[in-house]
Amino acid sequence: MGHALRLARRGLGNVWPNPAVGCVLVRDGRIVGRGWTQPGGRPHAERMALDSAGSLAAGATAYVTLEPCAHHGRTPPCAAGLVGAGVARVVTALTDPDPRVAGRGHRMLRDAGIPLTEGVLADQAAELQAGFLLRITQGRPFVTLKLASSLDGRIAMASGESRWITGPEARAHVHALRAQHDAIMVGGATARTDLPQLNVRGIATPQQPVRIVVSAQALPPLAPQDDDHGPLWRVEGSPAQILSDLGGRGITRVFCEGGGRLAASLLGAGLVDQLVGYTAGLALGAEARPFLGATGWTRLAQAPRFALAETRQIGPDLFHRWRRV
Amino acid sequence: MGHALRLARRGLGNVWPNPAVGCVLVRDGRIVGRGWTQPGGRPHAERMALDSAGSLAAGATAYVTLEPCAHHGRTPPCAAGLVGAGVARVVTALTDPDPRVAGRGHRMLRDAGIPLTEGVLADQAAELQAGFLLRITQGRPFVTLKLASSLDGRIAMASGESRWITGPEARAHVHALRAQHDAIMVGGATARTDLPQLNVRGIATPQQPVRIVVSAQALPPLAPQDDDHGPLWRVEGSPAQILSDLGGRGITRVFCEGGGRLAASLLGAGLVDQLVGYTAGLALGAEARPFLGATGWTRLAQAPRFALAETRQIGPDLFHRWRRV
Ligand SMILES: NC(=O)c1ccc[n+]([C@@H]2O[C@H](COP(=O)([O-])OP(=O)(O)OC[C@H]3O[C@@H](n4cnc5c(N)ncnc54)[C@H](OP(=O)(O)O)[C@@H]3O)[C@@H](O)[C@H]2O)c1
Ligand SMILES: NC(=O)c1ccc[n+]([C@@H]2O[C@H](COP(=O)([O-])OP(=O)(O)OC[C@H]3O[C@@H](n4cnc5c(N)ncnc54)[C@H](OP(=O)(O)O)[C@@H]3O)[C@@H](O)[C@H]2O)c1
Repeated sequence: MGHALRLARRGLGNVWPNPAVGCVLVRDGRIVGRGWTQPGGRPHAERMALDSAGSLAAGATAYVTLEPCAHHGRTPPCAAGLVGAGVARVVTALTDPDPRVAGRGHRMLRDAGIPLTEGVLADQAAELQAGFLLRITQGRPFVTLKLASSLDGRIAMASGESRWITGPEARAHVHALRAQHDAIMVGGATARTDLPQLNVRGIATPQQPVRIVVSAQALPPLAPQDDDHGPLWRVEGSPAQILSDLGGRGITRVFCEGGGRLAASLLGAGLVDQLVGYTAGLALGAEARPFLGATGWTRLAQAPRFALAETRQIGPDLFHRWRRV
Repeated sequence: MGHALRLARRGLGNVWPNPAVGCVLVRDGRIVGRGWTQPGGRPHAERMALDSAGSLAAGATAYVTLEPCAHHGRTPPCAAGLVGAGVARVVTALTDPDPRVAGRGHRMLRDAGIPLTEGVLADQAAELQAGFLLRITQGRPFVTLKLASSLDGRIAMASGESRWITGPEARAHVHALRAQHDAIMVGGATARTDLPQLNVRGIATPQQPVRIVVSAQALPPLAPQDDDHGPLWRVEGSPAQILSDLGGRGITRVFCEGGGRLAASLLGAGLVDQLVGYTAGLALGAEARPFLGATGWTRLAQAPRFALAETRQIGPDLFHRWRRV
């Protein structure tokens, strides 16, 4: 299942509105098939693994990170595919909360007499597939907020000078994270001031993320959609409205890169699921521009809390990742 | 030498104005003696190691983190002690820049016909003994600045509420770091507002650090000196004047715990050698009080830069340590 989860990760950012699933087929202690949700969402992981295994799938154990689908779409359901291929046993991590599946995939397997083990590495699978799960259960995408700042939480001098606060390695890492999200989101002021590219550069990606500008005003002149730039969407409203709008359009993972007012409003609404920090080894002082805007909180108890998930050095900078508690 | 450096570390914070030195005696591949500078500075590491080895010192190799002293003080010089004990070979990490030694210890050993290897693990030894070296060569102590803040660099709500931003594990770690410094320093406003204890609590320490308040005003009513509180000193002037004053009084390692104005003034003067950060997993917003005060810098190039030396999780918080570049 660990291997299936690593395969599943490849789909993050390029399979929405589908879940990024991984599947491994093992026969006689040997991997005979491997699959992961393909860009755009099809073929599904199970289909790809079965195709790669061919006749070796018969008698194999299938490890799948999510309950196989049970509904006829453009293709036959994966649960039926596994049964048809003659797999001997199925192991899954999670039940698919999608009402079209919701246990029917598991039932289809059991009804066919295939031994089934559920809930293996369920926590890791839920973490990896958090965007899909949140969208199905709460109608909104998973939100990662990026903060790149100096040691004292500043993003620019008072003049606006901000080039090269963090190093090239951190910037490359940001592009890798962007590629694992369905969309990149910024506030209207950032869009107007920086005219940002909001795309993945320097690494190959099967599909550029959607570019989202949160603004009640007309969009500034950003690049048109092309091979290097994803669709450009303008959204407006409260954080909850914005995210439910994006969920409705199929987005499962959003990467928010500021500015400080949008970040404060998302944090204030309790809608930031993950925080990634890049801290550069310099101190700028109280006149410099803060990373985070005004929140309106007056008591410490109002501040949202995060649990440290990861910390390491990236180039000269400190990288830290936090999950909402 | 690695072992000798670990022994040397035990002296940090309680041997000023002396260096914290470590010494290991090895004979026939076996450690026969161990020593480190004792609280208050005497006995020296070599004396302690020779005493613990007794007659086994004859023919042993002595590993010492700093050149053995050559001047007669209250006790005979350590170089003479090593010669007298009949050690077969001496390995040192650094030359002692103290004008009373400055190569004379090494010469005394060579003149006695003892084979000498210098410069082993010199970088690590210079890092560990940085406070002593700075005081001898520049007349000022090594300065560590502590910053405990939220993810967005804040230390308190606008109201001043700041209890429990970082957790008990981080606070215990701060006490361990305090114990490794000769003195704890705060600005006048912090002293008046918080009436801080400025002592080591929760762990045994041979000697409480000196308490330093940087202020042109009369001292607020802090605890008198006793078993749990070190001497209380008031200093004033520019950062350079303050540190040269402290260097003159023998202080080799200062731990500065704020406030933001004093921290900004030390950083602005380029006098912060090490920065230790404790970052709590919460965001407070732009109204909250910043960790760092105004610096007066208008360009990014003016901001002092630090290189990441260490990062890890301490309790729920992120710990990071940076050295001046
Ligand atoms: N160095 C960095 O890492 C970095 C990263 C990002 C931004 N920045 C800088 O930050 C500055 C802009 O940041 P900012 O804080 O002023 O503005 P911002 O967060 O980028 O944008 C705020 C704007 O977003 C729109 N908005 C709509 N709904 C909102 C909601 N629920 N919450 C918050 N905003 C909502 C409003 O725009 P409308 O008026 O259009 O409706 C609002 O004026 C720029 O100078 C940019 O360069 C730096
Ligand atoms: N939560 C935390 O981690 C933490 C840590 C420390 C402080 N704090 C809070 O910070 C607040 C105080 O910070 P602050 O920034 O206002 O003041 P501060 O840095 O503690 O003290 C500034 C004062 O230091 C004196 N001073 C003398 N020479 C100086 C120099 N070269 N540079 C700077 N100051 C010099 C002056 O005092 P005189 O007027 O006496 O001459 C000056 O007014 C308090 O509310 C305290 O509770 C919080």
